[in-house]
Amino acid sequence: MAPITTPTLLLDEQKARTNLERMAEKARNHDLVLKPHFKTHQSLAVGRWFKDYGIEQITVSSVKMAEYFASDGWTDITIAFPVNPGEINRINTLAEKITVSVLISDPNILSPLCAELTYSVQAYIEIDTGSGRTGFDPEETRVIRNILKQIDQAAYLDFKGFYSHPGHSYSARSKKQILGIQQNAITQMRQLKSLYNNNYPDLLCCIGDTPCCSVGESWKDIDELSPGNFIFYDLMQVLIGSCQHSDIAVALACPVVAIYPKRNTIIVHAGGIHLSKDRLEQNGQSVFGKVVRLNENKKWNQPVENTVVKSLSQEHGIINGTNSLCRSVKLGDIVGILPVHSCMTADTMKSYRICETDLEIDHLQSAGAQN
Amino acid sequence: MAPITTPTLLLDEQKARTNLERMAEKARNHDLVLKPHFKTHQSLAVGRWFKDYGIEQITVSSVKMAEYFASDGWTDITIAFPVNPGEINRINTLAEKITVSVLISDPNILSPLCAELTYSVQAYIEIDTGSGRTGFDPEETRVIRNILKQIDQAAYLDFKGFYSHPGHSYSARSKKQILGIQQNAITQMRQLKSLYNNNYPDLLCCIGDTPCCSVGESWKDIDELSPGNFIFYDLMQVLIGSCQHSDIAVALACPVVAIYPKRNTIIVHAGGIHLSKDRLEQNGQSVFGKVVRLNENKKWNQPVENTVVKSLSQEHGIINGTNSLCRSVKLGDIVGILPVHSCMTADTMKSYRICETDLEIDHLQSAGAQN
Repeated sequence: MAPITTPTLLLDEQKARTNLERMAEKARNHDLVLKPHFKTHQSLAVGRWFKDYGIEQITVSSVKMAEYFASDGWTDITIAFPVNPGEINRINTLAEKITVSVLISDPNILSPLCAELTYSVQAYIEIDTGSGRTGFDPEETRVIRNILKQIDQAAYLDFKGFYSHPGHSYSARSKKQILGIQQNAITQMRQLKSLYNNNYPDLLCCIGDTPCCSVGESWKDIDELSPGNFIFYDLMQVLIGSCQHSDIAVALACPVVAIYPKRNTIIVHAGGIHLSKDRLEQNGQSVFGKVVRLNENKKWNQPVENTVVKSLSQEHGIINGTNSLCRSVKLGDIVGILPVHSCMTADTMKSYRICETDLEIDHLQSAGAQN
Repeated sequence: MAPITTPTLLLDEQKARTNLERMAEKARNHDLVLKPHFKTHQSLAVGRWFKDYGIEQITVSSVKMAEYFASDGWTDITIAFPVNPGEINRINTLAEKITVSVLISDPNILSPLCAELTYSVQAYIEIDTGSGRTGFDPEETRVIRNILKQIDQAAYLDFKGFYSHPGHSYSARSKKQILGIQQNAITQMRQLKSLYNNNYPDLLCCIGDTPCCSVGESWKDIDELSPGNFIFYDLMQVLIGSCQHSDIAVALACPVVAIYPKRNTIIVHAGGIHLSKDRLEQNGQSVFGKVVRLNENKKWNQPVENTVVKSLSQEHGIINGTNSLCRSVKLGDIVGILPVHSCMTADTMKSYRICETDLEIDHLQSAGAQN
């Protein structure tokens, strides 16, 4: 195995495939289509693993990302982001070749879509089930009916259904809280479906967030799931209650560059440009990562107890640990950091090294794609 | 000018050059060598501007960054990061061609440096003047004397002086507080200098942080300044007291993709992967950016009042503004966001568009360099 000397994002393929298999099985058991969100990994190589679990439809968060995965043979892609009027031409180019679904998150996008689309595109109406970010309150029936009317009249738009990202599940701190949010979101989607099912008997309801999809076991009237983070998980998902530490499939391998035993501090080359600045609050303390020891296969087990990345500069990671840890670690050792937010860490690192094969694999952010 | 349709980091060259000229003039007036930190811009094109102001020595935060700038003709580079034992060979390759200075931040690095260096390298001893991140307490005289002894005995190490990054200046919230930190740091460096000046009459004292360098006017016994952020500045520096909003030289141009006037919310394509997740707290609220309107030259003036980026998803920026702003902005409009932390925004964006010329320029993170 090639030695690691600089910050390197390790990906445990076995853990990722276990996470994937578990979610694919849940979808099968509940007759749901799993159309996973690829914004987490942004990698063609990782994307190909999904085909082993019967995945044919995927979700992305930008037109650029849709182009990237379309280039690798994906033919049914939902761009789960409000349509940007400046990108309709790029959507046309995609829709000429593959099935593209978009989100209608603002009524004023219908006019440019109707004027500029030249190929058929599927349209979800985005519903705000409580996250307060994007989409329509399900009770805005006048707005929703008006959008439906415009979609029906549009030459190149087909109504596909309702999409919601219940992102407020990220504020949950237990499975019970997640389930409360999940059931509330499903109830809203079900009521919407019952309102519009007569006119649109094929309409689909899609929900996509890792906490609800990981924990939820009752999915009546939901047709599709589009979680993303579950393939890697991270410390935030452990805190929320979606997974265990042992499910986390990525760790940033980084060299120890200074040790200060007097203040129980270890400095690693792993800063904000590697881990991203996402953090969580635990016991009144900001946490930017947790430390794992790597074995000879570059794999890891549970995080080291009473040890956290307590702050990040641009390139420095500052680990606060026990005195025994400081005395067992040596300058130049490579330690692993479990990230707070794996999607962001993958985005800043822009590549992965697979533990099992030692191969480096792609990430959209280093592919030189058009913005 | 090419239209902007996706998140694009605008760089106002005129503002950046004004910031640069101001710092270069301060250094000249105080007989200080300005060896600016290039981790902020990470761009060969921006780096070349510095030559117009007499800059010949530069500072970087990684070996990779040193290699990048050495490839563009820079011949005197300080790597202001603890030496990583796994990168000594790369330091040799650099030191064969140019003048390289490194930081000694842990006494145990001396042994691998003595064993593996094959070309002469200058060594600063890193001093912790209060930030609590890296370096030695100036009162650890036994440790410092021991390091000096080892440097003196090493075939390829020359003692250059003491380096300190008083990063605790980032906790300041006024010029007065910054000046207190700056004077305290200088006092510590001066005492060190007086202790070792007899044996090392040429030793240099270098201080490098944008708040102290921006505000400080008294520099007795300091020889070199190595600030980085001042070339762009950002909202954090405004909050600290280092600069004004009008000094900020970068803004993320991004399309408006949804408007919700009922809740005074505008959604832009500008998420954590563009701005980074750095934030500041103001009036009990998290702020991830402030909004500026762009003129026909893609330049901007003061931020829009009572309007902030209140949260970021991976690709969504959620702006909370006034109702009049929501009613004056249209879907597809391009607005600017002043970043909280310009170094991190530049790192995630990986390129710039210059306002004056409309040219796209390089950034290390898109240069495909070895990690």
